[in-house]
Amino acid sequence: MEEQSDYKLLFKINSPADIRNFTSSQLKTLCSEIRQYMVDVISQIGGHFGGGLGAVELTVAIHKVFNTPNDLVVWDTGHQAYPHKILTGRRDKLHTIRQLNGISGFLKRSESEYDAFGAGHASTSISAALGMAEAAKLQGVDKKVIAVIGDGAMTGGMAYEAMNNSGVLKSNLIVVLNDNNMSIAPNVWQISNYFTEMISHPEYNRFKGAIWDLTGKLDQFGDRLRKVASRLESGIKSIITPGMLFEALGFRYFGPVNGHNIVKLVKIFEQVKPLTGPILVHTLTEKGKGYKPAEGHIQRLHASTPFDKLTGKAFQKAGPPSYTSIFGNALVEIIKQKSEVVGITAAMPDGTGMDYVQKECPRNYFDVGIAEEHAVTFAAGLATQGIIPVVAIYSTFLQRGIDQIIHDVALQKLHVVFVMDRAGLVGADGPTHHGSFDISYLRYIPHIVIMAPKDEAELRDMLFTAINYKEGPVAIRYPRGSALGVDAKDGFEVLTIGKSEVVRKGDDIAILAVGNMVENSLKASEILAGEGISAEIINVRFVKPIDTQLLDSLASKFGKIVTVEENALIGGFGSAVIEYFSMNNYKNDFLRLGLPDVFVDHGTQAELHQILKLDAPGLADSIKVFLSKQIIQSKVHI
Amino acid sequence: MEEQSDYKLLFKINSPADIRNFTSSQLKTLCSEIRQYMVDVISQIGGHFGGGLGAVELTVAIHKVFNTPNDLVVWDTGHQAYPHKILTGRRDKLHTIRQLNGISGFLKRSESEYDAFGAGHASTSISAALGMAEAAKLQGVDKKVIAVIGDGAMTGGMAYEAMNNSGVLKSNLIVVLNDNNMSIAPNVWQISNYFTEMISHPEYNRFKGAIWDLTGKLDQFGDRLRKVASRLESGIKSIITPGMLFEALGFRYFGPVNGHNIVKLVKIFEQVKPLTGPILVHTLTEKGKGYKPAEGHIQRLHASTPFDKLTGKAFQKAGPPSYTSIFGNALVEIIKQKSEVVGITAAMPDGTGMDYVQKECPRNYFDVGIAEEHAVTFAAGLATQGIIPVVAIYSTFLQRGIDQIIHDVALQKLHVVFVMDRAGLVGADGPTHHGSFDISYLRYIPHIVIMAPKDEAELRDMLFTAINYKEGPVAIRYPRGSALGVDAKDGFEVLTIGKSEVVRKGDDIAILAVGNMVENSLKASEILAGEGISAEIINVRFVKPIDTQLLDSLASKFGKIVTVEENALIGGFGSAVIEYFSMNNYKNDFLRLGLPDVFVDHGTQAELHQILKLDAPGLADSIKVFLSKQIIQSKVHI
Repeated sequence: MEEQSDYKLLFKINSPADIRNFTSSQLKTLCSEIRQYMVDVISQIGGHFGGGLGAVELTVAIHKVFNTPNDLVVWDTGHQAYPHKILTGRRDKLHTIRQLNGISGFLKRSESEYDAFGAGHASTSISAALGMAEAAKLQGVDKKVIAVIGDGAMTGGMAYEAMNNSGVLKSNLIVVLNDNNMSIAPNVWQISNYFTEMISHPEYNRFKGAIWDLTGKLDQFGDRLRKVASRLESGIKSIITPGMLFEALGFRYFGPVNGHNIVKLVKIFEQVKPLTGPILVHTLTEKGKGYKPAEGHIQRLHASTPFDKLTGKAFQKAGPPSYTSIFGNALVEIIKQKSEVVGITAAMPDGTGMDYVQKECPRNYFDVGIAEEHAVTFAAGLATQGIIPVVAIYSTFLQRGIDQIIHDVALQKLHVVFVMDRAGLVGADGPTHHGSFDISYLRYIPHIVIMAPKDEAELRDMLFTAINYKEGPVAIRYPRGSALGVDAKDGFEVLTIGKSEVVRKGDDIAILAVGNMVENSLKASEILAGEGISAEIINVRFVKPIDTQLLDSLASKFGKIVTVEENALIGGFGSAVIEYFSMNNYKNDFLRLGLPDVFVDHGTQAELHQILKLDAPGLADSIKVFLSKQIIQSKVHI
Repeated sequence: MEEQSDYKLLFKINSPADIRNFTSSQLKTLCSEIRQYMVDVISQIGGHFGGGLGAVELTVAIHKVFNTPNDLVVWDTGHQAYPHKILTGRRDKLHTIRQLNGISGFLKRSESEYDAFGAGHASTSISAALGMAEAAKLQGVDKKVIAVIGDGAMTGGMAYEAMNNSGVLKSNLIVVLNDNNMSIAPNVWQISNYFTEMISHPEYNRFKGAIWDLTGKLDQFGDRLRKVASRLESGIKSIITPGMLFEALGFRYFGPVNGHNIVKLVKIFEQVKPLTGPILVHTLTEKGKGYKPAEGHIQRLHASTPFDKLTGKAFQKAGPPSYTSIFGNALVEIIKQKSEVVGITAAMPDGTGMDYVQKECPRNYFDVGIAEEHAVTFAAGLATQGIIPVVAIYSTFLQRGIDQIIHDVALQKLHVVFVMDRAGLVGADGPTHHGSFDISYLRYIPHIVIMAPKDEAELRDMLFTAINYKEGPVAIRYPRGSALGVDAKDGFEVLTIGKSEVVRKGDDIAILAVGNMVENSLKASEILAGEGISAEIINVRFVKPIDTQLLDSLASKFGKIVTVEENALIGGFGSAVIEYFSMNNYKNDFLRLGLPDVFVDHGTQAELHQILKLDAPGLADSIKVFLSKQIIQSKVHI
């Protein structure tokens, strides 16, 4: 790591006001120092990386030209905001980023007055910024509002909805398109293909040249033409530039401009600053810019674990394969047997394991962009024709597709398989990314089957079971990170829908555990056994339909029953069980363990499990108290 | 009503195959007969009307040119599909539309093989059609897929996501834009402003003319220019037409064409039929076309009650004002006192009552288009600046904004008020429109407050309470239709958050009722009183946070407790109560009444309440059985 003294400017900047009088040369130095500092710090602790490196000049130029925090900057998604954090008073906390009690990896309103709007999910920035711009109008205050959005996030329908609305309202809003032609995965934005085509088409440039040439050379007609032309200049500019999409949406288009040229960026922002109405500034950037290993490995360095800053190679940690890769490989195996199965990702092939399908079975692979709503209904359309779509979307991002699951899939009983990676607490990404709610948001949907595997072998069987189940939608949830390392046998087994599995017999208490909580419960049962408590552990497998036959027998055998899930306690699996018990007038004592009614902050998964008492010692503790008293559970309702 | 004999062609058509050899003149006759038939039937029974009248020629042309049902037609939203139903074997059932056991008012796969995809919510058609087109590609079958979408639905982000994805995939897909410049409410689609501007701009036309003029007159340069120009012809055509947006998205654009000229429509569909890749056909139509009273009253005849077919005047029924109008008027009253309050609608000003704000306080009114995702985050942006947004979206449509409520509003504890009209069963619109799930899909969200008024006076107070509550998001749910007719006193009262109200004292059983179920429970309590059963009735008011103090006292006073709500039993208010009872190890007997785990079909609200035993006699019945036995409730889990 460099010493503070190796930085000429960076450590003198405590807020954006400190750079407002910088010369071009100082701005350039600052940019390279920010880059150096990011590499220094992030190589040691890991974090989102490529996006921030690509946005260094953009960030500096925006804070130089605009009067933040009075002027409001809304960063879309937020993982590109490290330079912004460095410039806005959080330089010295950067080494705590994404760690327990450290600063967030995303924007967070409670963290800084410079974070005008929190984010983590994509495509929200224009909507939020439009709200701020309209608020300023209503309040009669003078305030610039800037949304910075990547080309990847532009594939999200919300961004379009917001641009359309901006055009209708003619709001004073500056949208900066940070176009790196490479969002999380290689680009799936058709507009960018169009950009490239327009800019590079030699005929187009020749034609444009010829017309202007002619108007200059022709006395007789040139005047007339030039007169018409000049009155239409702005119109023509918009028609014959890549900006026509944005012009059609009511934006004035500026650019494209090199997003790594700080001088040009400052100039264009100075130019648009006094203008009114919706403005779009199109900047071309490179993700990972300025750090060679990142430039070469875009996807790997989107979000990274700690790495060697010279080579960019991650410090490997050994361990079992991830659930993600188990899923990806299993899906490939199944597609090779059943060609009617296809995989769908919403711009996250690597994150979801769908990259295995992309590589091995490209014909059966669809990346629809950051477009979860469309992903679900696209799958519904496929399913009407006998194709079996497997839609892999993180638990938190599938929140975007709930209406489509209800209205387009479940209502029509279409056979679509939803695979929700990152169910439960995801760790460092924190509250915007925790998969805390999927059981609650799916369970009330008629016709749906919801499963959660206890380990990677069961994940394989569940995927196979889901694909072979023809009656309607199926959802499978599993956590982020390494699986347990159990041997996955060859082939697949079809599980009986709605049947749980007793994984440990016991006499004193029954523990119904969902997914990854089976393993923690088994470990807790060892602790309990050491104290003479014999716990029966049930691997729930099916959150819906629940195993009513098993529940009937548990009701008569055990006085006290525990449910454990890494999902909100409100409306979760535990609620399903007590709904059933209540219906049958069973009077057993219950302890429901899971996520409390709060947004859980960031930290490692292990730390969060410990704090929330969902690790083995925590579970054992809670269960001992439950056995000894009548009432132990903390209030989940605020 | 006309006699069958007054129709020359219509009653001879049993499927689209019967019109494939029709001459132009026959097609014209058929169109006018369909129109006449719609007016005849719908004037007597009510129904969606304007959309279908505007789509008569489109429908006939599509079924004439394409080989349905092998070729697949996906109708967006579906309320324009009456002519489609008439042509595809459902003519004689049209008089049953939207009635119990009658045909659906929307598309429904189970109803006809010609209904390729069900709908009710907007903007889904291109996604579904794209899925079908890709399925055909995978299966190697020859099949045309046509999505018909209105300009209103084009404001929805899903439509854009799907078009973008179509362009990337280069799928064989025909999108028919049914552009009536007037979706449910007057248009909010910026692109259509752009269309109008482009087409009507005299300078633009003069400029275009001048260039082509010149190339003809100039020997010296003309040749060169014409040569370049002709090679660029298709490019220029796309650049200098309203189609540029679609071209940018990878579609070939055709049109605009008069959507009421059956001959031109047939011709253009014949022209595009053999083409591959994504195609967009832009048709210009008039909602309500051909029926004078509908042409004049677009919004009123979007969906109508029975009416006089000569004047278009609805047969009025007397009754108390609707919850919708009570809400709209109350919001106007509040905005006049507090100018920082604004109203937001997603293209439904009339349906939500936001038209009162539009009329009385236009500065405080926003119609964002059919764009629920954006609506929520736009509100979040406003709230960051101290504006208090009231977002009025039907319960079923707010399913589109759940992620935004979680991630953009609740996580940041922003003060946004959500007003959910049409909560519970909506009646004739059926399963795509029932507001069956909002309690379940909101209840697990931290920081949110959820209320339901027992009558219109309480709705006013709840709205006022929500606007004055600064701690975070608040949601208010109430049913479709007439309020109770109670006197709404002047002014407003702030309710205590989380406090329920005992509306009837009793000794034998406690009934906790949510919203409109308070009235039904009171009536049921009269029936029960007649049989010597004394029921205490609680107006729940707050679904979250629940009134734990009251629940504690009920637990000790009543052995048997009933909850009643017009929401899914899974994860609903009843679950909140048993979650609390379970946590406190209270052992009371429970009966939870509400919506079972199925999609409820269409019918009048009264019919559905009766079938589901949520009317007073039904409630009284269930409660008597509960009092006499231990277990009565039907299984809610499938």
